[in-house]
Amino acid sequence: MYTVGIIGLGLIGGSMAIDLKRRGFAERILGVESDPVAAEAALTMALANELVPYEDCIARAGIIVVAVPVGVAVKMLPDILDRITPDKIVIDVCSTKEQICQAVKYHPHRPQYVSTHPMAGTEYSGPWAAQPGLFDGRACIFAQAEESSPKALKTIEEMYKVLNMRPIYMDPSNHDVHTAYVSHISHLTSFALALTVLDKEKDEKHIFDLASGGFASTVRLAKSNADMWVPILSQNRDNVLHVMDTYMEKMKAFRDAVAEYDEARIRELIDEANKIKKIIR
Amino acid sequence: MYTVGIIGLGLIGGSMAIDLKRRGFAERILGVESDPVAAEAALTMALANELVPYEDCIARAGIIVVAVPVGVAVKMLPDILDRITPDKIVIDVCSTKEQICQAVKYHPHRPQYVSTHPMAGTEYSGPWAAQPGLFDGRACIFAQAEESSPKALKTIEEMYKVLNMRPIYMDPSNHDVHTAYVSHISHLTSFALALTVLDKEKDEKHIFDLASGGFASTVRLAKSNADMWVPILSQNRDNVLHVMDTYMEKMKAFRDAVAEYDEARIRELIDEANKIKKIIR
Repeated sequence: MYTVGIIGLGLIGGSMAIDLKRRGFAERILGVESDPVAAEAALTMALANELVPYEDCIARAGIIVVAVPVGVAVKMLPDILDRITPDKIVIDVCSTKEQICQAVKYHPHRPQYVSTHPMAGTEYSGPWAAQPGLFDGRACIFAQAEESSPKALKTIEEMYKVLNMRPIYMDPSNHDVHTAYVSHISHLTSFALALTVLDKEKDEKHIFDLASGGFASTVRLAKSNADMWVPILSQNRDNVLHVMDTYMEKMKAFRDAVAEYDEARIRELIDEANKIKKIIR
Repeated sequence: MYTVGIIGLGLIGGSMAIDLKRRGFAERILGVESDPVAAEAALTMALANELVPYEDCIARAGIIVVAVPVGVAVKMLPDILDRITPDKIVIDVCSTKEQICQAVKYHPHRPQYVSTHPMAGTEYSGPWAAQPGLFDGRACIFAQAEESSPKALKTIEEMYKVLNMRPIYMDPSNHDVHTAYVSHISHLTSFALALTVLDKEKDEKHIFDLASGGFASTVRLAKSNADMWVPILSQNRDNVLHVMDTYMEKMKAFRDAVAEYDEARIRELIDEANKIKKIIR
C-alpha cells in the first residue's frame, strides 16, 4: 500500500482518490488543493485523509499524482522532479502529452515520471464532480512509457489496473493527434452548439421545452470548464485546427446540400455518418 | 377505450403502441407497416394486436396516428382525411409542422386532424427501438390547435396525458423555427462530427479506444436514419440554413481564437457557452 499524494482534487484527482483508497491501493491520500472552497469541500467529502501544502505532499507521498490543468502541470512537473528523492514516482493525468513530455525530456529524474492520460470524465468539474467507478472499463494512455524506469512504470500500471483501466501505449505526438481527432473536436462542437442555441433562441423556456434528449446529450460537453480546456486547445493548437477545418468542410457539405434541396446528397452524407454505429454503440 | 390505428410501427409509433395499450387508453392497436421485415418484428414483439392494410386501418380505427417520415406523411394525410367518417380523429407526430399543416389547411375534414409533435426519441429507429416510457415527462407540441374541433383536440390531449407528456401550444411556423434552433441543429452537428472523425481517424480501434463518454454522447445522434432526417432538413430548409450559418460563425470564432493562441478569447467563448448549464441539467 502506498501513500498517494494528489495535487488537484477535482473531477479526476478526486475520483482517483476515492477508488485508490476504497480498493486498497492507497493507504493514505494526501491532497493538495489551492482553491479554498474546493479544499473545504474535498475535506467535507473526505476525498483525502488530510490536505497538506504542496511541499509536504512531495516530501511525504510515495506516488505523486499531478491532476491540475495542463498549463499549470507543464510548469509544476519539472519543479516536482527537482525535489523528489529516488524512491518516489510522479505521474500526470493531463489531456495533452507532447508539451508536458517535452518539458521534462532531459530532466535527470525523468525515469521517475510516468506520463498518463486516463480517458474518463464527465462535463462537471471540482471535488463535487468526483465519483467512484469513474475510470472502470475505460482506456488509459501511457505516453512515452519507455522513458520511465521499469519499476515506476510497473507501479503505475498496477495502479491503473486497480482503477480497472485498459492500458494503451502511444507516443506523445500520436496521442495528441488522436485525442484532437476524437475528443477535443467533440468539445468544440458542443461549445459552438451551446453558443448557437443561446444566440438564436432568446427564450430560455423554449430551449428547456424543446430540448428532448437529443439536444441535451449533444450539448452536454459545453458545460466543461475553461480552466481545463483553454490550455488543452492552446497546447494542441495545430492538431485542433486541422480537425476543425475538416469539420467545417463537412458542415459546409451539409449546408450546400440542404440549400440546394439536394435530397440524394443529404442522404449520402447521413448514410456515411451512420457508419459510426459500427464503431460506437 | 379506443381502437387506435398506428401507421408506421417504428420508434415513435411502436413506443406509442406499447404505452397506449399498457395504460388502458387503447383497447386495440391496429398496426400498418409497409416494410416486411419491420412488420414481422412488430408482430413478434406484439406491438400491435394485428397488422392490417392501410385502408382497413382507416375504416376500423377511431384514432389514426400517422407515424411515418414527414415526406410521406405530407401526402398521406390529405388522403386519410378524404376517407374518414366524421367520428374519427387523425393525428401526425412529425418533426416539422408548417408544410403538413399547409397541406390540409383547406380540407373540409381539417377539424378532425390534430397536428402534434411529441418531443421524444432516441437515435435508433424501427420497431426494435420502441420502448415503454419513451414519452414520460417530455413536451408535446400541438400546432395550430385552434383548427381542430374541440372534441378531437380534447381526445388527443387526453391521449398525450396518458403518455405523461406536457402540452405546449405553438403555431406551425414558430414550431419549425424553434425546433431548427434547438433540435435539428443538434443532429447536423452530430452528423458532421461523425463524418469528421471517420475521415480523419482511419483506425477504428483508435476511435473505439479514445472515445471516452464525451465523444460517444456528442456523436450519438449521428446514428439517426436518413429516411427520417432527409425530409425534415428539406422541409425546414430556411430555418435550418439560418441556424447552420450561425453555428459556422461560432465555430469560426473558436478557430480564429485557437489559431491566434488568444487564450483570453477562448476563455470568453467557453464561459459564454457554459451558460447552457443554467438551462439544461
